[in-house]
Amino acid sequence: MTPGGAGAPAAREPRFARVAVVGLGLIGGSLALAGRARGLFGHVVGVGRNRANLDVGLERGAIDEAASDIAAAVDGADLVVLAVPVGSMGETARGLAPALGASTIVTDVGSVKARLVAEVEQALGGRGRFVGGHPIAGTERSGMAAAFGELFEGRCCVLTPTDATDAAALDAVRALWEGVGMRVVELDAARHDQVLAMVSHLPHVIAYALAGEVAAREASGEELVPFSAGGLRDFTRVAASDPDLWRDICLMNREEVARAIAAYRARLALFETLIAEGRSAELGTELARARTLRTRLT
Amino acid sequence: MTPGGAGAPAAREPRFARVAVVGLGLIGGSLALAGRARGLFGHVVGVGRNRANLDVGLERGAIDEAASDIAAAVDGADLVVLAVPVGSMGETARGLAPALGASTIVTDVGSVKARLVAEVEQALGGRGRFVGGHPIAGTERSGMAAAFGELFEGRCCVLTPTDATDAAALDAVRALWEGVGMRVVELDAARHDQVLAMVSHLPHVIAYALAGEVAAREASGEELVPFSAGGLRDFTRVAASDPDLWRDICLMNREEVARAIAAYRARLALFETLIAEGRSAELGTELARARTLRTRLT
Repeated sequence: MTPGGAGAPAAREPRFARVAVVGLGLIGGSLALAGRARGLFGHVVGVGRNRANLDVGLERGAIDEAASDIAAAVDGADLVVLAVPVGSMGETARGLAPALGASTIVTDVGSVKARLVAEVEQALGGRGRFVGGHPIAGTERSGMAAAFGELFEGRCCVLTPTDATDAAALDAVRALWEGVGMRVVELDAARHDQVLAMVSHLPHVIAYALAGEVAAREASGEELVPFSAGGLRDFTRVAASDPDLWRDICLMNREEVARAIAAYRARLALFETLIAEGRSAELGTELARARTLRTRLT
Repeated sequence: MTPGGAGAPAAREPRFARVAVVGLGLIGGSLALAGRARGLFGHVVGVGRNRANLDVGLERGAIDEAASDIAAAVDGADLVVLAVPVGSMGETARGLAPALGASTIVTDVGSVKARLVAEVEQALGGRGRFVGGHPIAGTERSGMAAAFGELFEGRCCVLTPTDATDAAALDAVRALWEGVGMRVVELDAARHDQVLAMVSHLPHVIAYALAGEVAAREASGEELVPFSAGGLRDFTRVAASDPDLWRDICLMNREEVARAIAAYRARLALFETLIAEGRSAELGTELARARTLRTRLT
């Protein structure tokens, strides 16, 4: 029998009978909704410090139970999902480690992997069976109110097993993300961080830097915002993301993010030279190549 | 009596009895639709080299007549709107100058003003009454098929009169853009180009440069696109714009665009330093400031 939500297939045992989702934000909340809807989860405990946010989770049927005591929440869980900001992941893992069963599967959703996986493995000290993961999905919104169960469909999830990773736990975490509609890929954590620096962390820095440049000029008396059209607005949409979260992501992947910014600055310098020197044909070639990639992303 | 389209108020003379829209792209086509719908235009002639595109204009009721002969099209016109790409504006003005009546009002929609206004004024050689303009509106799509009459509503239009500008013509062009829902501001052409370099031209270069960097890495064998989420896709949306158009805009405003890129590269260098050196508090301050601006743009 499935104690799952309304969308659950009726006659199957849930894959994870008792689940603790630690951090009921956009990702954690959406996973709770998706896991319930797909019949993957039995009893779901949501853990968080913001009571109002947990209440939204209860009202929306994402969780069965709201908890602020993390040790009680993970006690007896088959699966613990760490969905707190990357800057709080290590401390959260340290806090719940003593209450973990030996076979409890623990996974995370952090956007950075190498430093984070090492930190969480150390914090858990061998308790539970940890698998590092990163479901690549999101919007610029946050919190349980912004969560939706379809967030992961068709997206890619990267798992980053280490020598210490239990093979059965890896399989289970793969089944978890495939179960909510994702394509799962295994990558070395360092390679994950290189790739994400380029396709995600750099674009965020670029957007924040553009908004920052415009803000600095407005602060010194230049009138710019009244003359902006869709370009600037759409472009800086990602700069509406939580700045504390992105500060921590950038710092936890600092070498790769700094390297990506340096490479990007060099390419901007090329554009600057071609434009300043009026090198029309070369500039046209650069712009056309960029557009080719763009069409692959739609 | 108003010969305008279905949306035209019935019992008023149109402000411009005979209008030639030269270049029936997103801007020209949308202006034709809006001017007809609001009863501002009487007979509208669309001029262009692409017959299929002009046919779309006829079918959608944007224009009454399609012409490929520019001299015949502007003969007897009260208003000529130059809505060709900035790189073709001078040549287009030279081509139609001999057919212009002395009192015909001519305006343009180019995204660059200082160099372009000088070029067009010279090309017209004192024929007609020219007013430089820039309706700040657009999408990444192009052509008459993408045009819509509401494109201008609530947006800003900059007019850049010079010492040579006729005061009555300036008033009429102001009425034209206000008539289709825009807020009209007069600026010195050089100041326009400074402002637009920062809020429009720079964002486009940034997007093209990011797409170009990712394309270059993919070409050398790195697998990146499968790991990209909304961030990169949304971010490079503007890089889907016509590369030839943006090459010409960048080159016609080369000094200001190069200056804007240089300032932006310096700000990126600051982010790179703060991240590489792990200066958390300062990085947090920079990111938070950027977000403040972003919220003003929504």
